[in-house]
Amino acid sequence: MKITKISLEPPYLIYLGDVPDMHHAKTGAGVAYWRPENCIGQMRLPDCPVDLDLPEMTVQGAKDAGVNTIIVGVAPKGGQIPKNWIPQLAKLAAAGFDIAAGLHTKLSDTAELVTAANESGARLIDVRMPPADLPIADGRPRTGKRILTVGTDCAVGKKYSALALHRELQRRGVKASFRASGQTGIMIAGEGLPIDSVVADFISGAAEILSPDNDDDHWDVIEGQGSLLNPSYAGVSLGLLHGSQPDAIILCHDVERVETEGVVGHYPTPELDEVIDDALRMARRTNPKCFCAGVSVNTSSLSDFDRDNYLSKLQSELGLPCVDPLAIGMSPIANFLLKYAS
Amino acid sequence: MKITKISLEPPYLIYLGDVPDMHHAKTGAGVAYWRPENCIGQMRLPDCPVDLDLPEMTVQGAKDAGVNTIIVGVAPKGGQIPKNWIPQLAKLAAAGFDIAAGLHTKLSDTAELVTAANESGARLIDVRMPPADLPIADGRPRTGKRILTVGTDCAVGKKYSALALHRELQRRGVKASFRASGQTGIMIAGEGLPIDSVVADFISGAAEILSPDNDDDHWDVIEGQGSLLNPSYAGVSLGLLHGSQPDAIILCHDVERVETEGVVGHYPTPELDEVIDDALRMARRTNPKCFCAGVSVNTSSLSDFDRDNYLSKLQSELGLPCVDPLAIGMSPIANFLLKYAS
Repeated sequence: MKITKISLEPPYLIYLGDVPDMHHAKTGAGVAYWRPENCIGQMRLPDCPVDLDLPEMTVQGAKDAGVNTIIVGVAPKGGQIPKNWIPQLAKLAAAGFDIAAGLHTKLSDTAELVTAANESGARLIDVRMPPADLPIADGRPRTGKRILTVGTDCAVGKKYSALALHRELQRRGVKASFRASGQTGIMIAGEGLPIDSVVADFISGAAEILSPDNDDDHWDVIEGQGSLLNPSYAGVSLGLLHGSQPDAIILCHDVERVETEGVVGHYPTPELDEVIDDALRMARRTNPKCFCAGVSVNTSSLSDFDRDNYLSKLQSELGLPCVDPLAIGMSPIANFLLKYAS
Repeated sequence: MKITKISLEPPYLIYLGDVPDMHHAKTGAGVAYWRPENCIGQMRLPDCPVDLDLPEMTVQGAKDAGVNTIIVGVAPKGGQIPKNWIPQLAKLAAAGFDIAAGLHTKLSDTAELVTAANESGARLIDVRMPPADLPIADGRPRTGKRILTVGTDCAVGKKYSALALHRELQRRGVKASFRASGQTGIMIAGEGLPIDSVVADFISGAAEILSPDNDDDHWDVIEGQGSLLNPSYAGVSLGLLHGSQPDAIILCHDVERVETEGVVGHYPTPELDEVIDDALRMARRTNPKCFCAGVSVNTSSLSDFDRDNYLSKLQSELGLPCVDPLAIGMSPIANFLLKYAS
């Protein structure tokens, strides 16, 4: 079956409009941080307070520099494209640049952009839109190796940890691909599948497509979504877990997260060993050899002293490498993974 | 938030077209079997070999009898509406009858039907189409009691068992509603939500909508989907489990099912106690009191003698009432449920 996966062509120009602060420019900042080699410029409206320290470009400047794709690297309030951004974006589309965005309003629902893109042949790429014709998962064991990040909750570092492990494996010369399952991840990787946007019946099928057969010594590092214990999104997490057939998982956590976000009622953040147990039980349905390769914790709220105490205590409790991916890096987890993966 | 749930208005006329056999008329047969009081006629093309033993009706006859909704009670090959059915269906729409179907091709994508329905004011109801504006689940504990059927696999009697338990509770004067999560169930109940057709992020949110707050002594009997251990559909099952917040589950199984259906590779049907364990662990995230009220097994392939042996052995192993819902009925499970639900 032929599935048209989302695919962006670098180099990129990051479009920021007049986004009010860095928090709303997370996507653009993430692409610039993780893929600096792909980001050759930024474009902003006058008075935009956010600056990614990339060369400022005009439409002509972007042409001259060889830009292929404009990344709308922002999450404006309400997910709409602000009206005052449209003239500039339409000019870019008219000049033949592909435009990629992950907003609630589709680029392809914005008439000015569609007209401009049709005339120039540019593509309007909505990274929240899953491809049509996804298959139902068939559970066939695939070749190659896979590791998936799972979490105690949403927004606890699953994407960051996967990207950091991917970088660490590449640094060591291990064949590896980062597999993006969410919109920011897709912008960073330049491809992927927005797993939470597919129709429920096709979650695991999409996950199977996301990490296809590969060389026996190749690792897919798959970006996880949600948490098996998050009452809002656990279905996405389980479908992704089954379809990923992971050889290993990494548990991600944030020390500040004491309650599950976005829910009403009593939902304490689950114990870390409980999440590992549940994830491994479930994962072993499609890959009986799955093991946990470590725990990646956001400890940015702790002092260096408290962080070291916390991580060494956790490490002795769980018998697994426990790191902060920013402060310590993923090297201990990569060591453990490569030692124990058969 | 106002969510427009699917809702069908009885009485019904079951439309069979020229469906080749009873297997392809399962939906119509199910509605006639479980809701005989709502089914007052059938309409067929000449030479249709399937007969539900309902009064044969013409368009005028259906008018005179007070029919409100035409149930297209079939699953034709490929999920398309056969061309030779359209004139008759268009006549029914023109006469003002609502038409409900659960086909892959939407009724609302068939121009002749849309024209006819627009003129008469009839509704074209595609029961596979989830409502727009479903919420993300918020996990708020709801009032009232809930029981959900879970399975060792797809198609092992989850709908049948839920309907049979619902009937048994009603027979005893217990306040109860059957909550349909799939297309045939929705046709039978006249309302519900096609949980496997919603976007992945909204599975649990849809499940929360499906069984809203209710009286403390009211039971929602919720039709399960898939299985937590089915590699194709487990995400749907987990999202439905979390959002249902069940006080109790019933495990459904088919003795003939030794391997998971529709997958490639080694997927033996899981052990029954394993499925119960997994379902309870997961269910207790949103309802800490959840327990298993029994096991409902399709034993139609066994002799009476073998069935009795099988069920009594299972019952002593699991310490739970184990029944065949057709041969024995749901009374033992209803007893257990009402005794132990607090």
